[in-house]
Amino acid sequence: MALYSALPTDDTIVALATPQGSGAIAVIRLSGPDAIAIANKVFRGKDLSKQDSHTAHFGTIRTEEGRIIDEVLATIFVAPRSFTRENVVEISCHGSQFIVREILNLLIRQGARPARPGEFTQRAFLNGQFDLAQAEAVADLIQADSAAAHEAALHQMRGGFSQEIKDLREKLIHFASMVELELDFGEEDVEFANRDDLRQLVEELQRVIIRLIKSFAVGSVLKEGVPTVIAGKPNAGKSTLLNALLNEEKAIVSEIAGTTRDFIEDELIIEGIHFRFIDTAGLRETTDIVEAMGVKRTREKLQQASIILYLFDLSDETPESIGKEINQLENLGKPFLPIGNKVDSASAELLEALKGFEQMLYISAKDKTNLEPLKQQILYKANLTSFRTGNTVVTTARHYDSLLKTNAALEDVLKGLDIGVTGDLLALDIRTALYHLGEITGEVTTDDLLANIFSKFCIGK
Amino acid sequence: MALYSALPTDDTIVALATPQGSGAIAVIRLSGPDAIAIANKVFRGKDLSKQDSHTAHFGTIRTEEGRIIDEVLATIFVAPRSFTRENVVEISCHGSQFIVREILNLLIRQGARPARPGEFTQRAFLNGQFDLAQAEAVADLIQADSAAAHEAALHQMRGGFSQEIKDLREKLIHFASMVELELDFGEEDVEFANRDDLRQLVEELQRVIIRLIKSFAVGSVLKEGVPTVIAGKPNAGKSTLLNALLNEEKAIVSEIAGTTRDFIEDELIIEGIHFRFIDTAGLRETTDIVEAMGVKRTREKLQQASIILYLFDLSDETPESIGKEINQLENLGKPFLPIGNKVDSASAELLEALKGFEQMLYISAKDKTNLEPLKQQILYKANLTSFRTGNTVVTTARHYDSLLKTNAALEDVLKGLDIGVTGDLLALDIRTALYHLGEITGEVTTDDLLANIFSKFCIGK
Repeated sequence: MALYSALPTDDTIVALATPQGSGAIAVIRLSGPDAIAIANKVFRGKDLSKQDSHTAHFGTIRTEEGRIIDEVLATIFVAPRSFTRENVVEISCHGSQFIVREILNLLIRQGARPARPGEFTQRAFLNGQFDLAQAEAVADLIQADSAAAHEAALHQMRGGFSQEIKDLREKLIHFASMVELELDFGEEDVEFANRDDLRQLVEELQRVIIRLIKSFAVGSVLKEGVPTVIAGKPNAGKSTLLNALLNEEKAIVSEIAGTTRDFIEDELIIEGIHFRFIDTAGLRETTDIVEAMGVKRTREKLQQASIILYLFDLSDETPESIGKEINQLENLGKPFLPIGNKVDSASAELLEALKGFEQMLYISAKDKTNLEPLKQQILYKANLTSFRTGNTVVTTARHYDSLLKTNAALEDVLKGLDIGVTGDLLALDIRTALYHLGEITGEVTTDDLLANIFSKFCIGK
Repeated sequence: MALYSALPTDDTIVALATPQGSGAIAVIRLSGPDAIAIANKVFRGKDLSKQDSHTAHFGTIRTEEGRIIDEVLATIFVAPRSFTRENVVEISCHGSQFIVREILNLLIRQGARPARPGEFTQRAFLNGQFDLAQAEAVADLIQADSAAAHEAALHQMRGGFSQEIKDLREKLIHFASMVELELDFGEEDVEFANRDDLRQLVEELQRVIIRLIKSFAVGSVLKEGVPTVIAGKPNAGKSTLLNALLNEEKAIVSEIAGTTRDFIEDELIIEGIHFRFIDTAGLRETTDIVEAMGVKRTREKLQQASIILYLFDLSDETPESIGKEINQLENLGKPFLPIGNKVDSASAELLEALKGFEQMLYISAKDKTNLEPLKQQILYKANLTSFRTGNTVVTTARHYDSLLKTNAALEDVLKGLDIGVTGDLLALDIRTALYHLGEITGEVTTDDLLANIFSKFCIGK
């Protein structure tokens, strides 16, 4: 029932598949019916058209005039045994921008077309290599910068999510057929689809779909990072704490070449989970955070956070002042972690008074004590357990949206069952649910949707 | 007679071979005796140890715990049929920095060692894949950003330069042996090496070597760009001309992604030759260029130029003022191109007076007239004909230096022949010449030299 009218893929596309810049090698990828023939026209070495799939061949790339552009390795993939399921040639040349440009231009002169962003993956999807959710995961996989985001994208790319959706659809399709069969016997008032079984199925589907919908709260932060705020009064040690946390991790984060310095300063990866400190600079400079929390704009900032790390300067607080601040925090309705900083300078009386307050974690940001327990607490507060258990996690807003619509349609099915509507109305709602489920994996799709998805890919993917 | 004690290459090295950053794919390269075995430990798919050379295999990379890092394509190259002549595996994974790092770390845990800069090419050299001059050309090839630099590097990489040096050495080695043979018969006063033939050979070698030495003037500018200055009085239209030249080419230059905007603004490629405008901004702002030319610092700047484009504002000059400026230019002893700008506003008298002055090229920078003839003139003045004729061009300061030393030793041979020195002294000078020739191709080398050459490569090459 694909609504999608396949684009013509009778042409051959070409693009640089490796990142821009200088390196030892660069890989140029051709895909389409003429990929091997076009490569063969510019390649001097073995006759590429006579080689087995999955073989690599050394040779030179030459212009129409016979001028050598480079010595290369050409790897042949014969359809359908390739990423796109078309004929594919990967030309591995020296990693010079000049050479890459010369070879691309030559291949285009010889009949290849520059690929649009994501067009290789789009062809892989259109040719049935994988479904739409898997194709989308390819882009997520490339962008993933933490173990958790990587794992979620890989799970999705390998079809874990798609399988769940497919199972749900199959069950529902079965019932839709039964209900629609009744319509053919409209006059005879038969019931092929048992209404109690249908209700049970719909409720079962809803449980799964609602779990998936809820997982988006986790999935989106896995992808974007957990929005985190460090708050507290001036001089509570917020900058010191942030720097202490970042410094420990910086060596690891810096290894990711290409991350900018700004990026590093405000992001932290704890056990593979990416924490993003939102506008902490601004909040750290607020003169009185407790008062500021009453200010609408600051409150909004705090509302964006998934977690608030709230720092108390134990050398400068009383049990009463702490109580007042905790109250304010509780009013925000956000997970927060009260942290007692400068514990070495705290008075014995204060520590005694706080004894009953078990949530408080005592640290010294300056001396870097208790940073490990703090990280564990941050992880715990981030509440990403649904991910940790290995369940499928929804990470894409488009999927989230389709799941919401599916759920609404299923609600309508249940309401219809409650009031005993006719089979044709039930069938309509079931079909709506199926439609929205199908959008996720691309069994139902449109040109616009595809263009929208793949245009976000990089060229060459 | 290699002085070089081979480094142990019994270990297996690994590095990212493609540029850093996000892209569709990234390629990680392993080289060494255990390359296939190490890859096999982390690859799930076919048994890589049983596959033919030059074949590509789809599978997954898994950690020690069985966690999947990525779906990849592993291409096997069995020694000696590889770039390094060792076992090589190229792992083509998704172009994510996170994935690249995870796979690299995994391979290192499994026994690979992170490669040093240029270590793959160094191994290729040590294993006889190519000589030192060819290895050096690999780095030049990657850096080449114009057709001419590319052609020179490719010629060198493919052994054109090496062949010339090799031919020279072989001829000289023959004579060295003859002369040395005489030493064995020291008492008998025989002459195996005809002195006239030797003189003829040495003079022939010198002609070739001096041509190569001279070619460095061209080779170095091909590589670095031809240093060019646009000079002239204020308001002569220098900026307008530079912009007119750059704008036309900018579309082409911008296609080279990764070039910074600064880079683009001051560089120009004309028919594959790279022109670099040195400190033009400073010179363009000088209030009176003719006076400034007397100033030491400006004069030094002008001395760095290979060509000076000197612009006259024809709406504001007299035959006398032009004559004075031309005199100043001639005193610099640099190739210069006198350009008559604003030709449309020139008085009939001035044009009449300049009629005999045939070097002057008339343009209007504003209207972009005669820019093509100007470019041809710039190319002509750059005097790169020795490159254009397809001769070998020396592009590396190291080779230039060795050629100078070779030439000096050959001079000593000739002097020795003149004064009829004994065979043992002749042999010494011939050996010195051979030594310096051998340095170029790496037949004579030292650890320090190699370390110095390959440390300038990027990691992964």
